[in-house]
Amino acid sequence: MIKRNIFKNIGPLDHRYSLRDEFKDYSTYLSEEAKVKYQATVELALVKALAKRGICSQEVATQVEKAVKEITPEEVYKEERKTKHNIRALVNCIQHKVSEEAKPYIHFTTTSFDIVDTANSLRYKEATEELILPTLKELEKLLMEIALREKETVQVGRTHGQHAVPITFGFAIAEYVSRLGNTIQDIEESSKQLKGKIAGAVGAYNASHLFFDQPESFEADVLAELDLEASTHSTQIVEPEYITNFVHYLTSCFGVIANFSDDMRHLQRSEIGEVGEYFDEDQVGSSTMPHKRNPINYENVKSMWKEFMPRMMTVYQDQISEHQRDLTNSASSRFIPEIIVGLLSSVNRLIRVGEKLVVDHDNMKKNFAQNKELVVAEPLYILLASYGHPDAHEVVRKLTLEAEETGQTLRKLVQTKEELKPYWEQFNQKQRELLVNPEKYIGISVDKTEKIVKSWSNKLDIELTG
Amino acid sequence: MIKRNIFKNIGPLDHRYSLRDEFKDYSTYLSEEAKVKYQATVELALVKALAKRGICSQEVATQVEKAVKEITPEEVYKEERKTKHNIRALVNCIQHKVSEEAKPYIHFTTTSFDIVDTANSLRYKEATEELILPTLKELEKLLMEIALREKETVQVGRTHGQHAVPITFGFAIAEYVSRLGNTIQDIEESSKQLKGKIAGAVGAYNASHLFFDQPESFEADVLAELDLEASTHSTQIVEPEYITNFVHYLTSCFGVIANFSDDMRHLQRSEIGEVGEYFDEDQVGSSTMPHKRNPINYENVKSMWKEFMPRMMTVYQDQISEHQRDLTNSASSRFIPEIIVGLLSSVNRLIRVGEKLVVDHDNMKKNFAQNKELVVAEPLYILLASYGHPDAHEVVRKLTLEAEETGQTLRKLVQTKEELKPYWEQFNQKQRELLVNPEKYIGISVDKTEKIVKSWSNKLDIELTG
Amino acid sequence: MIKRNIFKNIGPLDHRYSLRDEFKDYSTYLSEEAKVKYQATVELALVKALAKRGICSQEVATQVEKAVKEITPEEVYKEERKTKHNIRALVNCIQHKVSEEAKPYIHFTTTSFDIVDTANSLRYKEATEELILPTLKELEKLLMEIALREKETVQVGRTHGQHAVPITFGFAIAEYVSRLGNTIQDIEESSKQLKGKIAGAVGAYNASHLFFDQPESFEADVLAELDLEASTHSTQIVEPEYITNFVHYLTSCFGVIANFSDDMRHLQRSEIGEVGEYFDEDQVGSSTMPHKRNPINYENVKSMWKEFMPRMMTVYQDQISEHQRDLTNSASSRFIPEIIVGLLSSVNRLIRVGEKLVVDHDNMKKNFAQNKELVVAEPLYILLASYGHPDAHEVVRKLTLEAEETGQTLRKLVQTKEELKPYWEQFNQKQRELLVNPEKYIGISVDKTEKIVKSWSNKLDIELTG
Amino acid sequence: MIKRNIFKNIGPLDHRYSLRDEFKDYSTYLSEEAKVKYQATVELALVKALAKRGICSQEVATQVEKAVKEITPEEVYKEERKTKHNIRALVNCIQHKVSEEAKPYIHFTTTSFDIVDTANSLRYKEATEELILPTLKELEKLLMEIALREKETVQVGRTHGQHAVPITFGFAIAEYVSRLGNTIQDIEESSKQLKGKIAGAVGAYNASHLFFDQPESFEADVLAELDLEASTHSTQIVEPEYITNFVHYLTSCFGVIANFSDDMRHLQRSEIGEVGEYFDEDQVGSSTMPHKRNPINYENVKSMWKEFMPRMMTVYQDQISEHQRDLTNSASSRFIPEIIVGLLSSVNRLIRVGEKLVVDHDNMKKNFAQNKELVVAEPLYILLASYGHPDAHEVVRKLTLEAEETGQTLRKLVQTKEELKPYWEQFNQKQRELLVNPEKYIGISVDKTEKIVKSWSNKLDIELTG
Repeated sequence: MIKRNIFKNIGPLDHRYSLRDEFKDYSTYLSEEAKVKYQATVELALVKALAKRGICSQEVATQVEKAVKEITPEEVYKEERKTKHNIRALVNCIQHKVSEEAKPYIHFTTTSFDIVDTANSLRYKEATEELILPTLKELEKLLMEIALREKETVQVGRTHGQHAVPITFGFAIAEYVSRLGNTIQDIEESSKQLKGKIAGAVGAYNASHLFFDQPESFEADVLAELDLEASTHSTQIVEPEYITNFVHYLTSCFGVIANFSDDMRHLQRSEIGEVGEYFDEDQVGSSTMPHKRNPINYENVKSMWKEFMPRMMTVYQDQISEHQRDLTNSASSRFIPEIIVGLLSSVNRLIRVGEKLVVDHDNMKKNFAQNKELVVAEPLYILLASYGHPDAHEVVRKLTLEAEETGQTLRKLVQTKEELKPYWEQFNQKQRELLVNPEKYIGISVDKTEKIVKSWSNKLDIELTG
Repeated sequence: MIKRNIFKNIGPLDHRYSLRDEFKDYSTYLSEEAKVKYQATVELALVKALAKRGICSQEVATQVEKAVKEITPEEVYKEERKTKHNIRALVNCIQHKVSEEAKPYIHFTTTSFDIVDTANSLRYKEATEELILPTLKELEKLLMEIALREKETVQVGRTHGQHAVPITFGFAIAEYVSRLGNTIQDIEESSKQLKGKIAGAVGAYNASHLFFDQPESFEADVLAELDLEASTHSTQIVEPEYITNFVHYLTSCFGVIANFSDDMRHLQRSEIGEVGEYFDEDQVGSSTMPHKRNPINYENVKSMWKEFMPRMMTVYQDQISEHQRDLTNSASSRFIPEIIVGLLSSVNRLIRVGEKLVVDHDNMKKNFAQNKELVVAEPLYILLASYGHPDAHEVVRKLTLEAEETGQTLRKLVQTKEELKPYWEQFNQKQRELLVNPEKYIGISVDKTEKIVKSWSNKLDIELTG
Repeated sequence: MIKRNIFKNIGPLDHRYSLRDEFKDYSTYLSEEAKVKYQATVELALVKALAKRGICSQEVATQVEKAVKEITPEEVYKEERKTKHNIRALVNCIQHKVSEEAKPYIHFTTTSFDIVDTANSLRYKEATEELILPTLKELEKLLMEIALREKETVQVGRTHGQHAVPITFGFAIAEYVSRLGNTIQDIEESSKQLKGKIAGAVGAYNASHLFFDQPESFEADVLAELDLEASTHSTQIVEPEYITNFVHYLTSCFGVIANFSDDMRHLQRSEIGEVGEYFDEDQVGSSTMPHKRNPINYENVKSMWKEFMPRMMTVYQDQISEHQRDLTNSASSRFIPEIIVGLLSSVNRLIRVGEKLVVDHDNMKKNFAQNKELVVAEPLYILLASYGHPDAHEVVRKLTLEAEETGQTLRKLVQTKEELKPYWEQFNQKQRELLVNPEKYIGISVDKTEKIVKSWSNKLDIELTG
Repeated sequence: MIKRNIFKNIGPLDHRYSLRDEFKDYSTYLSEEAKVKYQATVELALVKALAKRGICSQEVATQVEKAVKEITPEEVYKEERKTKHNIRALVNCIQHKVSEEAKPYIHFTTTSFDIVDTANSLRYKEATEELILPTLKELEKLLMEIALREKETVQVGRTHGQHAVPITFGFAIAEYVSRLGNTIQDIEESSKQLKGKIAGAVGAYNASHLFFDQPESFEADVLAELDLEASTHSTQIVEPEYITNFVHYLTSCFGVIANFSDDMRHLQRSEIGEVGEYFDEDQVGSSTMPHKRNPINYENVKSMWKEFMPRMMTVYQDQISEHQRDLTNSASSRFIPEIIVGLLSSVNRLIRVGEKLVVDHDNMKKNFAQNKELVVAEPLYILLASYGHPDAHEVVRKLTLEAEETGQTLRKLVQTKEELKPYWEQFNQKQRELLVNPEKYIGISVDKTEKIVKSWSNKLDIELTG
């Protein structure tokens, strides 16, 4: 085994971020070891399909199954030093472990990228089912719980960083329940679209057609062993758009949690202080300012998004491959697992910190109070307009300026204006109440929060505790 | 009207590329005029829904309909110079054209981005149906016809720019029928997912809830006028992932045609010469080399892809909007129409040049002949392996080196080797024939081409002429 | 003249943002008209150099000079419809305007991209000198003036959005004086590195060598007419790294002003309120919330940065051109003027809004006061440490927690602790004073601000008024 | 030590590409271990400067020097689990190793990013001097040698993938000598611009001003120990533009070698075959086509460029940091070493494969011969024009069409045309000779190649062997 001190690694994912417990899971699907394992699995699927068709014996398949289990990346890499070709090396390694009878059936009629592309589709699909979706759903569940818990916590709505009309904090979180929910669905769906191929060196089934009249049917058999379908058309490689879409949805999901993190960061600003990351007693915020407590986790997620989002450009460039393919997508596509690990690290971080998210209800109230009186401006304008005032927007805009200058509240000011009296008197009870109690002017924040949580709980089959 | 010499424009889309006839169509959906028109349409839908609920009279709706038809961007921009707010300007312009009774119902309970986002979803959706999809399908149809026409034209398959085993040129084109077909479907589907919103300043229906107990139902009514659905959750804006997905699929489609163009470019290399762009008699290839004929159209498409592909990064960045939204996606999202026009210009170019695409069958034959003898290597290796040779790949690799050095053909050489005779004799008739006639070693290129064309003809409802 | 309603344009630069007065200046250097004009200028330089060498008569040069002045993009585009080649079209147009004797000297021995690349270098260089640098320096000057004016205005320093130790607002602005200053220098220097070429179709001076023994010297003569130097090596095109560096520095400059805009945006948050954009009396902040005043200008600049920053990826891709060049950088490089106009629009916006920037000194004081007591933590820790306390950071961290819980000020608390007394007594007068007056703990903010302004004033030759 | 099987790593740089011998060197500067080592070096520089000023004793500096040498990332990470702060952890680890007297001087008055940013500048600067520049110069030298060796090898020039007029292969390589030379200079220069800072938590020297009247002078002293200069202005961090420029030049350099690789790839196309990668006897080209020899190394470099070029977008995003800094550049900037290693891996690959680059002179001749006759078109047009033919370009364009149709050579054809005779007769001897011997029409390819090699040999101080 080639062991190395992790701190001699170059990539932060392989030193700094690999110290988390979750790294073992990432490695199961997304390391080089995993890749070799999945490639061997595809080689096995091929032989199994041959055995089912009676082309080779079941005994051959059994031998190959045993051989494949024993394969290690170390031996494949050692062999590759000789062949300078990684899949040929894998094939040689399997062949060394089986009988002479079995040897010819290894890699039978296939080209390297039948194995490589099919194995990648398989492992990204399984990683999605077994790792990505469960992790994302754990975060989704956490957000749902916060949304429900805080569904009635009045918070000032902010647009352009300016106080607007109020919502509830639960409603603000429901935004992310909804957006994350949508990307979870898209990731799941696009992972199911990842395709395999057993169509040979240029995609025309040249080799397999030597033996099968319906080589597409043989391809389907092999892929069925892996629960995959074939690319509609292949060259040497699977059509690149399936993986492009998949990485797009991962990237889009990363954008959603980066936005969430940005919101949480800003809500922790000293002047706002509406949420906080819980701090361990021993934790240091700054090496020189002992009083500092920084939103480092949300900053970290934003930072990771900046690192991984641009990598989508690599994937777009890899859509282009000359003729029946050039190899210029080979090295670059080896980095796709990093994108997944980057995303998952960030999601796991949000789960950890989200479980300890502190909401400061007092500050929420205080901040809302700051411009509470001005909130009345919106319903006032709308009511004036609806009761026929010809220039409501302008009138209210000027009233707010006057309120600011004189220090009076807007609702009092409005009642002193003779020309507005006719309108005021037409307002109904509920409408007047909202003008007097701006904290009730939250629209359907509570109902909508419940509705969204319920809807995503159903769609994603997430059971809420309590 | 503010008219300007087009050559004083900065953007190539608005000078150089705008000289094509198609520009008029682009402008219908994607210009600033179009945007204002669509925004006015949303304002109208709002009033219509109010009229249907009896909140305002049908007469009001009729007035607004008339007013909206007359709106020009010139007057809106003129008003904006006063208000410094584009939607307020639009609202003022409509109000100037209607009776006092109608005025209050204009923009009733909505916020600017109810109008802006809904209008954008509407116009991108309609542009997709009426402009993007028809254009893409025209190219798809052209590719289908070339694929069928050339389905039996043997061409050497190329991987890594090296001659591999043969395919047919029709099969090579079928790759793009399939990949373009897939992106057409994705674009259509994602355009249908574009959503509207009538949920107010922070998305909680604060204003509309003043008048409606079920403001979501009112929102649905307004959007139904436009054949749109509501975003699952809104803040001041529609969830950004719908448009992100839509632009992703446009970008991915651009990648497909860029790849196609790259292939066509390289097939026109002097040494390859398998296809050509038809040249007008008067056309100049080079200002100094009068003999040059350059693949300028395919080069242009590749170049446009390089310009527009990175803009997806802008869209990803625009997923992030602070709290109930900041405005930092406002200017940037104004550039999305450029991406669409960039794509459509390129597609229209490919249609024009594709209609005159010249295939040089002689050169295809000549190029294939160059390494024809070596093509035998693949089936030979596979057959040897399948008939039990323990080291077939290595044997054939060495045979090809020997063939190269001695100038003999591979298939002759193989027959001189005593140790290979036992295998040779086991090959069946079809197999021996392929070894002798490499041009038949095209797998199922012909059938697969037909199958793909037929399948996409059905899925996309494209009728093939002839 | 081909005139078009600007609202039928696709690009926001050519409709929305083109309504500003500055657009005329942009157009002078960066429109299609400008490009044609500059290309004609290069054709003229060529003939002038020929005349100086006596290869053609001075009369020929005079004729060409006159012809070049008359050239319009309209006639060139009309001719291009025939030739399908833009530079051939230009050459034809010039030739139509001169005598038979003069005709052969037009475009003599050159290839299209001798003209195209040289003309672009020329116009980007002149645009830098005459448009970009003056505009940037105007912003720089404005920042300098704000920095000096506010050099003593105490503001809380913020790291991670959390209150840290204080600075002055002038010092915060000095950051941008310095960073903008650096990019101004880099833009200037890299613009001077933009090169021309008169080296023919493949860069080997094949054609000019027919007539000149030292064709590089002839190239130097032509370029000297334009105050340009030759690319060290050329293919059909100038080495791409010169323009790549130039656009990099523009992009980097855009990043600096985007950062500045982000800071100004956040300082306008309702809870912070330290700066404001001056609002016209008639200006509307929100279509539905008449009380809103949004930092739309700073948001706009951030948004424009998101649009234009990714375009650097196009420039990087255009570094790659096959062999003696493919044309896939042709369309894409036509969009570079948009990047410049995007940047300049944003800089001009910052100038306009910066001139009316309102600083709210009361809010700065109020915000600083919020955590003023905790600011003491840093100097306290450092002083304790410096006077030998073995665990100063930890002690102070715990003291701040205690201060928070008990509501006492840190400096009082520290004086109650017996174990800290020995250290306290060693502090000198200046040090104790800073612990008692946290608003004096601003380091060298004032001096540094002055120093930076003075330094950049000298380096960039910017005279400060008053 | 935390050791891990390298195949469990996620990143290809840390498994696949780390198997090369060079990895040890990369790790010396660019691993996490290296980062910690450099940070400790900065902490030492601080104490040394204190000792020189007599603030602490020389003995303290000696203790710290010894402590710093012993520091391992393992112990720092272990301590970080407690402090949750990496620099505090480093400081604690150093303090544990020194006397009570020395402890207070560790990290004296500094903030974490004084250490982090200064250490990064230091290691990137040293990595440039000791690793990046030597590696790049080795490639440069190799290119110079090939250029000189092949300076007279006639090769057809190619524009748009079409045969144009001839150059020499040495001249084609000289392009990359020149472009790589330019980026080497730029990388060197920008690395020297990397700055440090010892300016405290918000950049105003708040803490150091407690002890020094001229804290900038103290900062200069500390940085002088490391041969660095101070950032003109700092916040918590060094101005981001220095590192942005440095990574830009690395990225630009990557573009140059990607272009070179693309050229070499295409020259290996089966139909072109002008260069080849030398293949080991045992090397496998394709797992299924034993005759294939693929340009995998040049493909790999192109692929790596696609992976790393977009990461510049991360660096541009990291220019933006709120107020006196947010931490959202922290995680992302940890990935910069990957960019350097990606580049160096590719350069080392090019060196390995370049040393065995095979030039096929026969194919170069053959390819040139293919359109040799048409090459005459350019000088013919130019000569006709120069001798006064009013429409030379058009005449020659038509002649080439006729030559193509009739199979005659252009130069023969031209002599049959009565109307051209008057011009022909005016051509001088040298000019006629070039029309008859197109392989001499290579301009100044040979001289220019020599000149470029000589110039870069001087500028970069590269001695050429032989």
